Amino acid sequence: MQRLPFHELQATLAGILVRLGFAPARASHCAQLFAETTRDGVYSHGVHRFPHFVAMIRNGKIRVDAEPALVARFGAVERWDGHRGPGNLNAHASMERAIALARAHGVGYVSLANTNHWMRGGTFGWQAAEAGMIAICWTNTLPNLPAWGGVEPCIGNNPLVFAVPRAAGHVVLDMAISQFSFGALKSYRARGEMLPVDGGFDRQGQLTRDPAAIEASGRALPIGYWKGSGLSVLLDMIAAMTSLGLATHQLAGDPLQEAGISQVFLAIQPAAFGPAEQSAHIVDEIMASLHRSKPADQHTPIRYPGERTLQIRAENLARGIPVDPAVWAQILAL
Amino acid sequence: MQRLPFHELQATLAGILVRLGFAPARASHCAQLFAETTRDGVYSHGVHRFPHFVAMIRNGKIRVDAEPALVARFGAVERWDGHRGPGNLNAHASMERAIALARAHGVGYVSLANTNHWMRGGTFGWQAAEAGMIAICWTNTLPNLPAWGGVEPCIGNNPLVFAVPRAAGHVVLDMAISQFSFGALKSYRARGEMLPVDGGFDRQGQLTRDPAAIEASGRALPIGYWKGSGLSVLLDMIAAMTSLGLATHQLAGDPLQEAGISQVFLAIQPAAFGPAEQSAHIVDEIMASLHRSKPADQHTPIRYPGERTLQIRAENLARGIPVDPAVWAQILAL
Repeated sequence: MQRLPFHELQATLAGILVRLGFAPARASHCAQLFAETTRDGVYSHGVHRFPHFVAMIRNGKIRVDAEPALVARFGAVERWDGHRGPGNLNAHASMERAIALARAHGVGYVSLANTNHWMRGGTFGWQAAEAGMIAICWTNTLPNLPAWGGVEPCIGNNPLVFAVPRAAGHVVLDMAISQFSFGALKSYRARGEMLPVDGGFDRQGQLTRDPAAIEASGRALPIGYWKGSGLSVLLDMIAAMTSLGLATHQLAGDPLQEAGISQVFLAIQPAAFGPAEQSAHIVDEIMASLHRSKPADQHTPIRYPGERTLQIRAENLARGIPVDPAVWAQILAL
Repeated sequence: MQRLPFHELQATLAGILVRLGFAPARASHCAQLFAETTRDGVYSHGVHRFPHFVAMIRNGKIRVDAEPALVARFGAVERWDGHRGPGNLNAHASMERAIALARAHGVGYVSLANTNHWMRGGTFGWQAAEAGMIAICWTNTLPNLPAWGGVEPCIGNNPLVFAVPRAAGHVVLDMAISQFSFGALKSYRARGEMLPVDGGFDRQGQLTRDPAAIEASGRALPIGYWKGSGLSVLLDMIAAMTSLGLATHQLAGDPLQEAGISQVFLAIQPAAFGPAEQSAHIVDEIMASLHRSKPADQHTPIRYPGERTLQIRAENLARGIPVDPAVWAQILAL
């Protein structure tokens, strides 16, 4: 890995986006979201994904100048059309609206149809938490998991984000509904390692920790087996029916063609319920209870979701943001 | 199992509740919720749990005449105090408020502190769906699972419910964050069966399908391992901080003493986003895509969450509601 200053990373990506037709302010913001994702250690969805993002601009799936538009509103809910614009900018704008609605009504719900991959879902959880809001948001995806009892991809891994604001460090859970992504399976296989827990079925229908066997069968597991399968279906339904957008079964199976997805952004204002000090104290006490709990390995304390992100962020800002030299060379040649 | 008419079941339970001090209308409603849970096949949380419920009335943890009261409101959110009343009545009243808020604002969020076990969480999903609403609701619980990386119970299995209304049968997912409840482990052990998938760690810290080994270690798994552990923490935080109520770490470890828990009820009005026919069509198409998907076993079609509930409900209403004769004798002696 080579390490680059954050601003060099952002400026380089922004320059490429401007050449691809982005207005300068949008290029800068989009590049910032990519750079922040890598800064926070989510390497799969940051700078390393930028060439894929550019490929989808070039193949016409992402429209560089499309901005989201309000289609319908009622009280504390709004429905937006993403017009197939850049997914991270569309999602950021939608969470901004959910935050504004939550300021006015205590809770805000924004649905977004016709958008594209939002890259790191956690981005929008951190965004809401920075604004002092609790957030829940999710996206549907192309079919990449069999439903429970099925053998062919039919449900999405539909990443789901929960965020809670906290002065000493926000609590942000960003999880796909698959136990392991296909990217993770590939990494384990490349390192010659078995998965730490069962990750799917082999071709014979047996649960296995062998990443290659799961890649061969295409039968990766949802979290919690039948439970995650049901959760994926419900998330897809709610996203599609409140955005009046596409559902997983309507999305192309090829990631380079995956466009027009549906998302949900929900923000909740803690101060609407009572004194902020009181809810802040409740969160701190929960955190303390986790840290007090006895770990299986005395050298590995129990962590809360987002805790490691803050450590990685600090390290990467101090030492430079790590980027694979091969990917960086590819980006400089874009 | 003996089979009893629904109304006999409800009337018997209601009579006992009246003798325990419930006002007649509340006794009838509370008994109805217990009977409906058994009617729908969730035997662990229906009539079979009634003796436990009565024991918690007798030990003073459940206050029969306590009604929930509004503490704070702002726009589309409300905070309620359950006053340690019967958990199913408190939860039902809270979901009614969330539905009313969603009618007025498109979305409604109700937090409830100081309540008791809500019995079957799915009850409140079905309730919202019957009112034409999408719903998400959850409860915290006493500590009954180790956090990921821990060895002692520290997080709750915090049941989580998603519901989507549908003319041909609502879609309702009602799942605890544990992969298997301790009740389920006990049943597998009693039948001399291994679990179908890993359900926890043994005393040596190895993943196992042996229910007895998990009961011995106390280390049952959350769904998705580290993912469900994080999800449980976030659900507890949001419930406690928006209700200003107790968090999992503050709840007694003994189920007979578990009182004063915190819950969230969220309702979303599909019609706030656009034409009802359009969102109904989207849900039906998702359902059809699931039913079209190739099953691993050709005799076991892929089901949607709630599909089996409707089949069991119809069968139990036609043939009588099944009750364990020993439990029924115990109830008649209460």
